[in-house]
Amino acid sequence: MAKLVEIVSVGNELLIGKTLNTNAQWLAKRITSLGLFVSRIIVIGDDVKEIVKALREAVHRNPDFIITTGGLGPTFDDKTLEGIAEAFGSKLQIKEKALRMVEEKYVAYAEELGHEKFELTPARVKMAKIPEDAEPLPNPVGTAPAITIRNNNVTIFALPGVPSEMKAIFENSLSPVLKAASGNLTFFEASLYVSGVMESEMAPLIEQVMHNNPYIYIKSHPMGAEKKPKIELHLSTIAEDAETAKKRVSRVLVQLSEIIKAKGGKTKIAKAEQR
Amino acid sequence: MAKLVEIVSVGNELLIGKTLNTNAQWLAKRITSLGLFVSRIIVIGDDVKEIVKALREAVHRNPDFIITTGGLGPTFDDKTLEGIAEAFGSKLQIKEKALRMVEEKYVAYAEELGHEKFELTPARVKMAKIPEDAEPLPNPVGTAPAITIRNNNVTIFALPGVPSEMKAIFENSLSPVLKAASGNLTFFEASLYVSGVMESEMAPLIEQVMHNNPYIYIKSHPMGAEKKPKIELHLSTIAEDAETAKKRVSRVLVQLSEIIKAKGGKTKIAKAEQR
Repeated sequence: MAKLVEIVSVGNELLIGKTLNTNAQWLAKRITSLGLFVSRIIVIGDDVKEIVKALREAVHRNPDFIITTGGLGPTFDDKTLEGIAEAFGSKLQIKEKALRMVEEKYVAYAEELGHEKFELTPARVKMAKIPEDAEPLPNPVGTAPAITIRNNNVTIFALPGVPSEMKAIFENSLSPVLKAASGNLTFFEASLYVSGVMESEMAPLIEQVMHNNPYIYIKSHPMGAEKKPKIELHLSTIAEDAETAKKRVSRVLVQLSEIIKAKGGKTKIAKAEQR
Repeated sequence: MAKLVEIVSVGNELLIGKTLNTNAQWLAKRITSLGLFVSRIIVIGDDVKEIVKALREAVHRNPDFIITTGGLGPTFDDKTLEGIAEAFGSKLQIKEKALRMVEEKYVAYAEELGHEKFELTPARVKMAKIPEDAEPLPNPVGTAPAITIRNNNVTIFALPGVPSEMKAIFENSLSPVLKAASGNLTFFEASLYVSGVMESEMAPLIEQVMHNNPYIYIKSHPMGAEKKPKIELHLSTIAEDAETAKKRVSRVLVQLSEIIKAKGGKTKIAKAEQR
């Protein structure tokens, strides 16, 4: 059984369309490549009630992991930790370990910039105020620590929204945990570009090929118009090893190519690869 | 009271990180500019159960509108209409009006391509199989009609996932409805770029300015590092007219600039504008 992950992106900028949610795509790609299955992505605003509601709903769906991004910074509308604490009946408190992480950052900044000292103002201490049941995770790039907490057998990770910080913490602290949880499964994908056969004509053929190859998922992505068809057929599979995955995908690529040629279409295989 | 909209994006390609969810950003931007408030974005896979669950949860949160994208095409994994029918206790049936829309497309394709006729195969008829309580909406760019349906005082629109089709149907059929619902409100935004003041130092100042200007939302977006700060302060407001909105934003831009200069920072105003 594939392990399930839900992604919760927090930020008004996503809801007003100011920012494209590249964080969720990056996470989805990485999580999938580690052999886990992203079952849902939820985007909500910087609002404690919304964060609480979304997290409770997510835990209720019982995924293995929930990963949030955004809302860990020093400003008043960085509310993710407040939301996590309230959702899971934990209390926000200044945790010694987290405070030391924040403090060390400002000591280093002062040194680098030749300042005497940066005071630990309330806005800075805020970044070390985490749910009492949570563990802080070091942020190798920015200031605010990430955190992890467990609730109802779900492991929750809260990451910052700044992409470089989010990525660095994911690679350092999350990736090993997720990889171990998936049992080292491999995600393998390939694309077959088709022209000259309408998507509506290909639909029953794809269904037949998938029926005969239950481990392969085939999704058609129309790139032109129905009347002048150009379609990407995206094949993917999750397997225990790359060899098995590659064999499965190659077999289906051959089957599909033959069927499409018989219908008068043209095909081009993009390099099959392990993520 | 601002009208609430939830966006539900359907597609495995989004959950495996193959595709960046530009549709949701485009919709969020357009909906916001029409004076409505996007309260949530949900991404789920091509799975009837997931679609049913997500739609029921969304209706339960009682937004004014739900807009789905994806899953209206001819392939077996285009399952949005099946999900909508099941979620709202409606039955899928071939609707005359929808069938005529699909039929006309294939007649036109045959003419353009010099074919005698394109048969209405099951995969093509599938695009006209819509919930019995739904109305089909014309697709000026592609083949599959969009639909609209009401449930528990929520108006649901289901749009195709191909961006050009999604956008054309939004502009033709949804935009007038949403605009009327919002009462012609205006969204106005401006950015103030700040350098030389740390985000943690600016945090209490922003909070104070927002407290004094309750109609303005200010969000800080760090673009550099805390130790070498470059921050975008994004100001936004929703108002009855552009004049009011502009005055509000301009006043706050001046207040913020003065505060930041007093702290030794530099500011640059990006052009304030109505969306």
